[in-house]
Amino acid sequence: MNIAIIGATGYGGSELVRILHQHPEATIHSIHSSSQQGEPVYNSYPHMQDAIDMTLEDIDIPKIANAVDVVFTATPSGVSSALVDQLMEHDVKIIDLSGDYRIKDQELYKEWYKKEPANHDNIQKAVYGLTECLETNLQDVQLLSNPGCYPTAVLLGLAPLLQKQIINPTSIIIDAKSGVSGAGRNASPIAHFPEMNDNLKIYKVNAHQHIPEIEQILNQWDAQVGTVSFNTHLVPMTRGIMATMYVEATKEVTEDSLRDLFKETYKDDYFVRIRPKGVFPSTREVYASNFCDIGLTYDERTNRIVIVSVIDNVMKGAAGQAVQNMNKMFGLDEKTGLTFLPVYP
Amino acid sequence: MNIAIIGATGYGGSELVRILHQHPEATIHSIHSSSQQGEPVYNSYPHMQDAIDMTLEDIDIPKIANAVDVVFTATPSGVSSALVDQLMEHDVKIIDLSGDYRIKDQELYKEWYKKEPANHDNIQKAVYGLTECLETNLQDVQLLSNPGCYPTAVLLGLAPLLQKQIINPTSIIIDAKSGVSGAGRNASPIAHFPEMNDNLKIYKVNAHQHIPEIEQILNQWDAQVGTVSFNTHLVPMTRGIMATMYVEATKEVTEDSLRDLFKETYKDDYFVRIRPKGVFPSTREVYASNFCDIGLTYDERTNRIVIVSVIDNVMKGAAGQAVQNMNKMFGLDEKTGLTFLPVYP
Amino acid sequence: MNIAIIGATGYGGSELVRILHQHPEATIHSIHSSSQQGEPVYNSYPHMQDAIDMTLEDIDIPKIANAVDVVFTATPSGVSSALVDQLMEHDVKIIDLSGDYRIKDQELYKEWYKKEPANHDNIQKAVYGLTECLETNLQDVQLLSNPGCYPTAVLLGLAPLLQKQIINPTSIIIDAKSGVSGAGRNASPIAHFPEMNDNLKIYKVNAHQHIPEIEQILNQWDAQVGTVSFNTHLVPMTRGIMATMYVEATKEVTEDSLRDLFKETYKDDYFVRIRPKGVFPSTREVYASNFCDIGLTYDERTNRIVIVSVIDNVMKGAAGQAVQNMNKMFGLDEKTGLTFLPVYP
Amino acid sequence: MNIAIIGATGYGGSELVRILHQHPEATIHSIHSSSQQGEPVYNSYPHMQDAIDMTLEDIDIPKIANAVDVVFTATPSGVSSALVDQLMEHDVKIIDLSGDYRIKDQELYKEWYKKEPANHDNIQKAVYGLTECLETNLQDVQLLSNPGCYPTAVLLGLAPLLQKQIINPTSIIIDAKSGVSGAGRNASPIAHFPEMNDNLKIYKVNAHQHIPEIEQILNQWDAQVGTVSFNTHLVPMTRGIMATMYVEATKEVTEDSLRDLFKETYKDDYFVRIRPKGVFPSTREVYASNFCDIGLTYDERTNRIVIVSVIDNVMKGAAGQAVQNMNKMFGLDEKTGLTFLPVYP
Repeated sequence: MNIAIIGATGYGGSELVRILHQHPEATIHSIHSSSQQGEPVYNSYPHMQDAIDMTLEDIDIPKIANAVDVVFTATPSGVSSALVDQLMEHDVKIIDLSGDYRIKDQELYKEWYKKEPANHDNIQKAVYGLTECLETNLQDVQLLSNPGCYPTAVLLGLAPLLQKQIINPTSIIIDAKSGVSGAGRNASPIAHFPEMNDNLKIYKVNAHQHIPEIEQILNQWDAQVGTVSFNTHLVPMTRGIMATMYVEATKEVTEDSLRDLFKETYKDDYFVRIRPKGVFPSTREVYASNFCDIGLTYDERTNRIVIVSVIDNVMKGAAGQAVQNMNKMFGLDEKTGLTFLPVYP
Repeated sequence: MNIAIIGATGYGGSELVRILHQHPEATIHSIHSSSQQGEPVYNSYPHMQDAIDMTLEDIDIPKIANAVDVVFTATPSGVSSALVDQLMEHDVKIIDLSGDYRIKDQELYKEWYKKEPANHDNIQKAVYGLTECLETNLQDVQLLSNPGCYPTAVLLGLAPLLQKQIINPTSIIIDAKSGVSGAGRNASPIAHFPEMNDNLKIYKVNAHQHIPEIEQILNQWDAQVGTVSFNTHLVPMTRGIMATMYVEATKEVTEDSLRDLFKETYKDDYFVRIRPKGVFPSTREVYASNFCDIGLTYDERTNRIVIVSVIDNVMKGAAGQAVQNMNKMFGLDEKTGLTFLPVYP
Repeated sequence: MNIAIIGATGYGGSELVRILHQHPEATIHSIHSSSQQGEPVYNSYPHMQDAIDMTLEDIDIPKIANAVDVVFTATPSGVSSALVDQLMEHDVKIIDLSGDYRIKDQELYKEWYKKEPANHDNIQKAVYGLTECLETNLQDVQLLSNPGCYPTAVLLGLAPLLQKQIINPTSIIIDAKSGVSGAGRNASPIAHFPEMNDNLKIYKVNAHQHIPEIEQILNQWDAQVGTVSFNTHLVPMTRGIMATMYVEATKEVTEDSLRDLFKETYKDDYFVRIRPKGVFPSTREVYASNFCDIGLTYDERTNRIVIVSVIDNVMKGAAGQAVQNMNKMFGLDEKTGLTFLPVYP
Repeated sequence: MNIAIIGATGYGGSELVRILHQHPEATIHSIHSSSQQGEPVYNSYPHMQDAIDMTLEDIDIPKIANAVDVVFTATPSGVSSALVDQLMEHDVKIIDLSGDYRIKDQELYKEWYKKEPANHDNIQKAVYGLTECLETNLQDVQLLSNPGCYPTAVLLGLAPLLQKQIINPTSIIIDAKSGVSGAGRNASPIAHFPEMNDNLKIYKVNAHQHIPEIEQILNQWDAQVGTVSFNTHLVPMTRGIMATMYVEATKEVTEDSLRDLFKETYKDDYFVRIRPKGVFPSTREVYASNFCDIGLTYDERTNRIVIVSVIDNVMKGAAGQAVQNMNKMFGLDEKTGLTFLPVYP
């Protein structure tokens, strides 16, 4: 399997390089950047010195499409759509890590992203790659839209509850927290070390562009969900997302029945791990891995269920899930090249 | 005003030393510790070398009570009650920083603290010192029970809404986050640097002992509150608490009406600052100060109000608020000795 | 004493605001910025909301000079000189926090700063304000050049040894480490949180512009010093500098004789604290304070003395020392407004 | 290849599990702990849940020795020797990660470790596994003593200079910095998060037990070295060591000749990477990998060479180098199972 990565100098792109470098069935054929073409990749990423002896190339779509089996577009929203709409005209598979093909409703995209949407047909063709919740055979898919980091953690934590309709669908409150790598590689005042270290910030209050993505899927599962409260915080750490979720139980539930439901739902999903009773995951427990770890409990006092879902935003929230999807698109075991343990501590 | 501090080697106690050291009307007469008596305080706290030339003394209640005007008990829950019940027999004012006199219901205390409660009469005599919400004249009070760190942030953020009854009292969800100094000075696996750095943990899920404290006050304001959902996270930072709160609006509100309500409520309260529209506080913006900064917004989509309240847990959440209360107990301006700015960055 | 601060939106400037706000003899008359004039200061620094109710003004030198007794120029090197050369024509005292008046030799300045030097006469008039090592009466000084952060830590740690000539002057090796606030407030790739968190970087190897400043003073104390090895590292923390220094002993020394020498040298200097035998300071022990804490030892095996000197780079390394100098320039006790304890933890 | 790991609940042991889990030629047969026998490993390390489905076993030396090909003793100094001296009586290879077999001189061990030394004959039999500097064929070795974390970074950075005798052997000054995982997994006041976060500490000044280890090897390379100055700092990060080294040049050197020497020395060593001119490594650039990255320069002003060597202390400084040594002991390519990239950011 030959691979091209467009946007290799962002954090999502460099993480793709990291994990594909040790993938037994894949070969990184070329890496591309709009700004640093001609430079060796280790200029941007000294940690790759000697190990990845490649030069960043320009983005020549026909050339790329002819040379490889699959292209990862790890480019910003608004940039991806221009590239992908071109790539779709070639016989090549595409995995897009931006938000451009996640929102089916173009108006909604415009409203939340403040950008022009991608081509309508391609948006409809795109399959939303929340792997564990998919029944589609991905081998027939040309364009896979890789889920956002927050939606991945949130949706995997809510799927069993909504699909079994044991919660009040209008009661969903999601308080999410992220490491700062989620802000990308460009230096900015919000992520300036002295401003972010030893600090905790809330941002984009009620306005994060992942809200419509989350709501779109939740409403597919239960059309009564409507809207959710979803807020995001920046935590002084590099990687990791934790979503703490509060929902009202409508059916009778117990600690055990809840846990059984989650274990049953994910029994064939290597990358979703349900913590035992009384134990909740910390973000570090999935660091640099493709796991989504979930802890949960039922509070009799308030009749609310609390679900805690953690992922590594760069991995399961981006590059890791993208490679998991790639595996399925090419008929491989989804775990191929992804079974390494989290880095701890 | 002569002062004794019992428990001076904990973080609350050492912070009392820091701020009383520059208080224009107070003199630290003596500092006490059950374990390090006879040692100079800079053995425990080298940052005080030469500046605080004092020795830790043993805890001789009659001697202390005779020598000073006010005693701060910055001791753990369960330890404070033993000391305070003795101190109450003397003519001395007491400000207790533990949880021992906060919960009026002894059974509730037992249930959440798993410890024997303090003397019933003293619990009833104790005034809960959430200064900004108090109408009591503190000059007549002998025993002041200083609020918990989380309750301070939470209650100041909810008071205007509950007191004006513009929210559904059963809809309150509080997602709180704290710096690790809240765990105290004793080394423990949860706060071991390699386990906590670059990590985010949820702890005491639905079981934090500040829950009954919060519920007690909220129900005083509106008896229909009943229970609340309250969860706490450890963030890899030293100081700071952020409470992100979600409540359902029951009356018609707007961004402006909400902000006006908060500004009006706290118009005479120097230490509560309401951020302008669209701006939310980060924890660092109150670092090492006595401020409680609040941002808020109304989300039309979900009909929920989001309130973000931040404090420094060691200051407004402990020593700072205690000194603010002391000022009032002695007829001083509440700001005396506390007007220094946050340390930023 | 009326004060103007130019460059109030940088970290040095905002720290001046913080400490002058609680200075009993000083009044901040106006704060100035070249880029944000007309804006309230809390737009840049929300932590000042309501507490510092001032607006940033433009930089009108004659107007400023007429209105105040002293001007702090907390502006970048190269910018300060243009302002200060103008200010010198007025009857106003000036404390410059940049590097523009520290290096007496204009050619040397050019070589290390890659900028045009300030006016020759003003450079010569400027007094280098390493307060503890100064014999000049600062009351007669118009222009005070405030020392760099690294030089402050380094020079206070070496002064007793060089002045008593008990070390080999050509053996000095200084390995310095700094918090990231030293890089200033502008966002940059080197200080981007995900790049700097959980990381340690060396920078400007053998090329830091503080080298000629350090060497200039060391050679005043002992002309045989010539050059020193001086390197700097960025540590993932906000504030603090530690200089670890290695020098060869030439006279017979002991642990005790060394410590006695340092204690004697600094016996009248409130802000320099010498740790007892076997104890070394950490940077946090001077956090947000004006102290310089020093630990030292003699290693018989290698015949080398190790000196560890720590300061808060924004305080003793910038704003704190500047105010200490201001106090002396106006005949006040050097400690006025600066006796607050470090913030710990 | 069947493997047993003794001491699997420490950081070195759990890192062995992490990398051996993805080693193509090795199988973890059993993991052992003196305190948690009978417990599933994910009780200690939730990040291994479901992925490592093993139970900690007690330490039964004959049983272990019979079952496996190689035993890793990732146990503390003083504990390892008791186990290894027993293991040596069986036909099994041993890789010891403690300091017990590194110091050839038993008296020196006693002096620096304050513990009883291991059996004399076994100490002599043990091969010091600084792989890149070894000429021994490791296939014949029964007991391999894995180098300390600091010595690995230091020795790889000094080897080319000393072996070619281009520096003054008595001029070596090493200023080392480490992440806090080096302090091990047991909670302690020095590594308590609120005491270590946003802080920088120097520790064991002139007294670190790695000093005799470093000096032993340096003196093998050049007997005139004698002693070195070596100091260690704790940096608020989890992983990583940086050694900044200062040595006096005695032969004529240039930037280029120096770099050529290092590149030539390590031309066959995949895990040692020499940065290009003007570029120096940060610790994060080797995070969670087995690389040792080196930057260096010559300062004409001072005639000193500065070498900056970084490793991940848990990997190249412990588990990674141990597996590299294991590969060689079993005739495999040293890179087997270790070619994964650093985790960045």
